[in-house]
Amino acid sequence: MIGFNIISKYIELSSKGENDSIDITSDVKRILFTSKLKDGIVTLFVMGSTASITTIEYEPGLKKDFPRMLERVASKDIEYEHDNTWHDGNGHSHVRASLVGPSLTIPFHGSDLCLGTWQQIVILEMDIRPRNRKVMVQIIGIY
Amino acid sequence: MIGFNIISKYIELSSKGENDSIDITSDVKRILFTSKLKDGIVTLFVMGSTASITTIEYEPGLKKDFPRMLERVASKDIEYEHDNTWHDGNGHSHVRASLVGPSLTIPFHGSDLCLGTWQQIVILEMDIRPRNRKVMVQIIGIY
Amino acid sequence: MIGFNIISKYIELSSKGENDSIDITSDVKRILFTSKLKDGIVTLFVMGSTASITTIEYEPGLKKDFPRMLERVASKDIEYEHDNTWHDGNGHSHVRASLVGPSLTIPFHGSDLCLGTWQQIVILEMDIRPRNRKVMVQIIGIY
Repeated sequence: MIGFNIISKYIELSSKGENDSIDITSDVKRILFTSKLKDGIVTLFVMGSTASITTIEYEPGLKKDFPRMLERVASKDIEYEHDNTWHDGNGHSHVRASLVGPSLTIPFHGSDLCLGTWQQIVILEMDIRPRNRKVMVQIIGIY
Repeated sequence: MIGFNIISKYIELSSKGENDSIDITSDVKRILFTSKLKDGIVTLFVMGSTASITTIEYEPGLKKDFPRMLERVASKDIEYEHDNTWHDGNGHSHVRASLVGPSLTIPFHGSDLCLGTWQQIVILEMDIRPRNRKVMVQIIGIY
Repeated sequence: MIGFNIISKYIELSSKGENDSIDITSDVKRILFTSKLKDGIVTLFVMGSTASITTIEYEPGLKKDFPRMLERVASKDIEYEHDNTWHDGNGHSHVRASLVGPSLTIPFHGSDLCLGTWQQIVILEMDIRPRNRKVMVQIIGIY
């Protein structure tokens, strides 16, 4: 029987507020390297209902282009029932976060994460103020 | 070698029709509790091409706001080639479901699902009539 | 202890260019069949920042309807900061790919992938020219 393990770690980070995107690729790679696991999956999950995770080419242009797309889809300048009830002004943040999603699963093979060259892992802050964020990094793999 | 297991269960539910959203968080937590597994991942998958799964703060406002976003992105009042061919009137449902996606992977650690406080797991019905839905809940973990 | 394994394979394919969608369901089923694993998950990940993966009813109408939705959300005829910097004309491709996402996780049970009848796995080419694409298919499961 091959050696098997599950490793659970958290990445904690502070966002600068709405539309901030934070590249966590090197953090994830470091946790994978330290685990010594050779083949398996990394599951990433951002806790909270106003942030998301995806992959993107992390360069200054797209850091503006992606939020502009979200503004077209769920503008902050329209009415949200969420805000009518709770008056916290982040109805659009919730809608955007549910659309992009909180979860990402990336395989690794021969200890290498299966990312493309221009493909980074990013946490997208969609809330209207700076937030502390906790991202679960869980690795299931074999040695 | 640590004890390891994979458990496969189905959640069966009936939607009330288009834009219904059903909170399955407590069902998932119950299946996880019963499994007695301590660390691992829960993979959720909704079978069918006109429903999706995501996380959201499950409150009455957002239950309206999220479908309104989908209506802006893939309105039911525009032309779909799908409907031109099949005449079943749910072209927009398919487009929306493929956008939001059928799959969600959530880690658990110390027997706790890694969800934020205001973050629930929801099945989103996008078809134009009430449907019976089957959601696979599969847990991979260690004791 | 039940027999456990992790299997990593690649699907390599060539897209015909922007908005091409390629059904990889039979490739994934063949890899799963060959693995002889009974219960577990298939993780699919498309390497690169201008392609995505999702499920859809793979029929000619929706193959046009889904890209039309992407054109409404991230039109190729508007300005992108990405293009202002890099002049490669695929800013919209990146935005669309990050929205739909690169990753999909599908459970299997009794050797059967948990897909609905009209639910196929597709790779969506969003770049503006034909591309060679590499999709990681990783299976974690028990015999």
